[in-house]
Amino acid sequence: MSHFEKYDIVVIGAGPGGYVAAIKAAQAGKKTLCIDKAELGGICLNWGCIPTKALLKSAELMHYTKKAADFGINTGAVTHDFAKVIERSRGVSGTMTKGIEYLFKKNKVEFLRASARVIASNLIEATSADGSKKNITCDAIIVATGASPAVIPAFPIDGKNLISYRQALECKEQPKKLLVIGAGAIGVEFSYFFNAFGTEVTIVEALSQLLPVEDKDSAKVLAQAFKKQGITAHTSAKVKSVTVVKDGVIDAVIEDSAGKEIKLTVDRVLVAIGMKPNTAGLGLAEAGVALDARGFVTVNAHCQTSSAGIYAIGDCTGRQMLAHKASFEAEVAVAAILNPKKAHGLNYGQIPGCTYCQPQVASVGLTEAKAKELGRDVKIGKFPFTASGKAQAIAAADGFVKLIFDAQTDAIIGAHIVGIDATEMIAELCLALKVEATAAEIGATIHAHPTLAEAVMEAALDAHGEAVHI
Amino acid sequence: MSHFEKYDIVVIGAGPGGYVAAIKAAQAGKKTLCIDKAELGGICLNWGCIPTKALLKSAELMHYTKKAADFGINTGAVTHDFAKVIERSRGVSGTMTKGIEYLFKKNKVEFLRASARVIASNLIEATSADGSKKNITCDAIIVATGASPAVIPAFPIDGKNLISYRQALECKEQPKKLLVIGAGAIGVEFSYFFNAFGTEVTIVEALSQLLPVEDKDSAKVLAQAFKKQGITAHTSAKVKSVTVVKDGVIDAVIEDSAGKEIKLTVDRVLVAIGMKPNTAGLGLAEAGVALDARGFVTVNAHCQTSSAGIYAIGDCTGRQMLAHKASFEAEVAVAAILNPKKAHGLNYGQIPGCTYCQPQVASVGLTEAKAKELGRDVKIGKFPFTASGKAQAIAAADGFVKLIFDAQTDAIIGAHIVGIDATEMIAELCLALKVEATAAEIGATIHAHPTLAEAVMEAALDAHGEAVHI
Repeated sequence: MSHFEKYDIVVIGAGPGGYVAAIKAAQAGKKTLCIDKAELGGICLNWGCIPTKALLKSAELMHYTKKAADFGINTGAVTHDFAKVIERSRGVSGTMTKGIEYLFKKNKVEFLRASARVIASNLIEATSADGSKKNITCDAIIVATGASPAVIPAFPIDGKNLISYRQALECKEQPKKLLVIGAGAIGVEFSYFFNAFGTEVTIVEALSQLLPVEDKDSAKVLAQAFKKQGITAHTSAKVKSVTVVKDGVIDAVIEDSAGKEIKLTVDRVLVAIGMKPNTAGLGLAEAGVALDARGFVTVNAHCQTSSAGIYAIGDCTGRQMLAHKASFEAEVAVAAILNPKKAHGLNYGQIPGCTYCQPQVASVGLTEAKAKELGRDVKIGKFPFTASGKAQAIAAADGFVKLIFDAQTDAIIGAHIVGIDATEMIAELCLALKVEATAAEIGATIHAHPTLAEAVMEAALDAHGEAVHI
Repeated sequence: MSHFEKYDIVVIGAGPGGYVAAIKAAQAGKKTLCIDKAELGGICLNWGCIPTKALLKSAELMHYTKKAADFGINTGAVTHDFAKVIERSRGVSGTMTKGIEYLFKKNKVEFLRASARVIASNLIEATSADGSKKNITCDAIIVATGASPAVIPAFPIDGKNLISYRQALECKEQPKKLLVIGAGAIGVEFSYFFNAFGTEVTIVEALSQLLPVEDKDSAKVLAQAFKKQGITAHTSAKVKSVTVVKDGVIDAVIEDSAGKEIKLTVDRVLVAIGMKPNTAGLGLAEAGVALDARGFVTVNAHCQTSSAGIYAIGDCTGRQMLAHKASFEAEVAVAAILNPKKAHGLNYGQIPGCTYCQPQVASVGLTEAKAKELGRDVKIGKFPFTASGKAQAIAAADGFVKLIFDAQTDAIIGAHIVGIDATEMIAELCLALKVEATAAEIGATIHAHPTLAEAVMEAALDAHGEAVHI
């Protein structure tokens, strides 16, 4: 039996794009419904950002516990309980999901666990797990359905031998030998994680460096760190084949950068390449929403699709697949719906990227290579953590801060940090980029001593040839 | 035998004021000499900022190692080797001191280990440890001699039963019961440190909160954390007497906030109140340099003393006794010497303060109380780490970010953070204050997810009633 319900705004998807959009819409007084067929919080809270950070905290602690004697602390033999590491991570996700539930209640966002299908720009059909259907009318729809691992014929994910991040996050049995295909943030973080707990990890990247979107200097330091940690990394390399001989025995053939074939046998393969938008079966095309060749929703600067009244945000629209990009697009879409005259866009050049292995890698703005490719006249300042008192005091001297400034205006155009706290330190540079701060301003900002952040100040001074500690 | 040597600039003191001044002067092409009777790096590198951070890293690791099982990591019984904790800290200081040695060589700063006496604004007499004397002439003198624990008749430091931070930093024997007098940054950091290793700590503060210079909300969270950690803290309280019965047995009488007397016996007392400037015996008054009633050098906005050609920076001039304040005054003084017409001052309202216990406490700009006292019309935004996904993932949900904005201009005027990484996070707000960023700008800055720094963005949004996650 079908009946109609009426909302101002319906958001499809409850991830960091969708739930933020729903809350923002409700805060603005709109009667808002959020529909998702799975857990509140989406991939981010349940299968991405949050649970991986819990795992990585355990990995870091494992690393430090093993080195505790250097700090005057004796621990006896250090072992780990892999299932418990995973269990804690799942628990953290559970807590955060409850947090969103609370926020929805507080802001009076209604939540419906169902599959949604867009019938028209003001009509959605929602099908619950028990097959019951509801028709929902609304003034505006925000599509925030995210993305998921693509099917790659050469590497068919079976969830057991070939796995994606999703299965990696709940695998209770630790692989002994792991092949990771793809050295983006996901591949790199899981390589670090499993290696920290004693898994023998080989990571293969087709492009010429680990973390291909990062500055060359950052990738170089990471490669050195991975080598020291015992991770085998092949860049400019291909995984030519993976063959499941039997469960837990997978033969792989890698072609390295010199064209040499390397054979190895592993018990698990993590496929960390290829994402596809979750746009199939939503009825978008039928409702007049244009998709690109790969299925991503086409949107304008205000996250509006080709169908008036339908907006799309986050991973399903492509570009950087990052939770904070989705959350900011949520704000853009809601603002455009609330008041088309005050609609604004997002500066996609100001979206930071973070990888939470150790040392961490973070950046915002242009890489040196990109700046030069764009013909920008740049001034570069750099400061290594080896010269930082705080880094020495906490035994974390790997890495550097590299800042890129426009030579004419002195304004910052790019920032790259590798180091123990890089993902937090990048926030200062995100603000710097937002307000177009200059090297002179950053260098003249009093930074507390002793902090790692002093390296930001010194890098800015270095761009003017005025650093003190190098 | 006495002979003359001629320099452009002579810096007396090789701490974070003096060594930075010497390097900056030399970088500007000035023939520069730095004189200190003790180690390069001053208190900061040898007996302050740096070695304490090494100790606190061990304390943090002790804390986490004991809780490792929560993260899926099993250890045997956790014990510690206190002498080794101290030894590592001393080693870090040694490394950093060598770093300054290298920087002096690189920048062609000459260093003389000697006691200096100012004879006139262009003449210094230096006396080495062996009694040999040198007369040195110069165009300008920068006095950067720092400060040291004052003699307080009621609490006579003997270096054994009653100690200062200095002896605390090299005590190879851990106290079992420690009384800490004074809850400024030094008292609080050592309380945290010793307690983490099992010392029974009582800390007494005369004013109404721990860390009296910090915002009331920050002190409140710290007090809760200390209580949970097992530290006994008395605020609005007095240490009425300490009596050394015999070595290692000290009777103390505390009057608590209710006027009740509390008697306790401890084996060590850390006196963390009262600093005096190191200006006696330098010949400053004779050279026409005005000192205030407490002996601090009186300086103008350009760090110039009442005697032309003599400048003073850092702790010996009073105000905030912080290494980064000294380093920035070094820059101010050198700029004034190089080009009086381009002399500039320092904004003393933009100096961050950090306390490195756990949770850390950091701030910059005005407290809420101070802003109101000044009659400022404020908007306040706050965000608790309990609502931060990153904080939950790393099991560090204590604390908050509190931002204070001018209600008219929307510009930030104060920032207060309590939390696991507060001392690094404050850097973003130091820049914000420097460039007069608004709540709107900070709230619209894309912060990476998941990071603790998102709490800064949310606090800024909260000031406009627009936070998403609370």
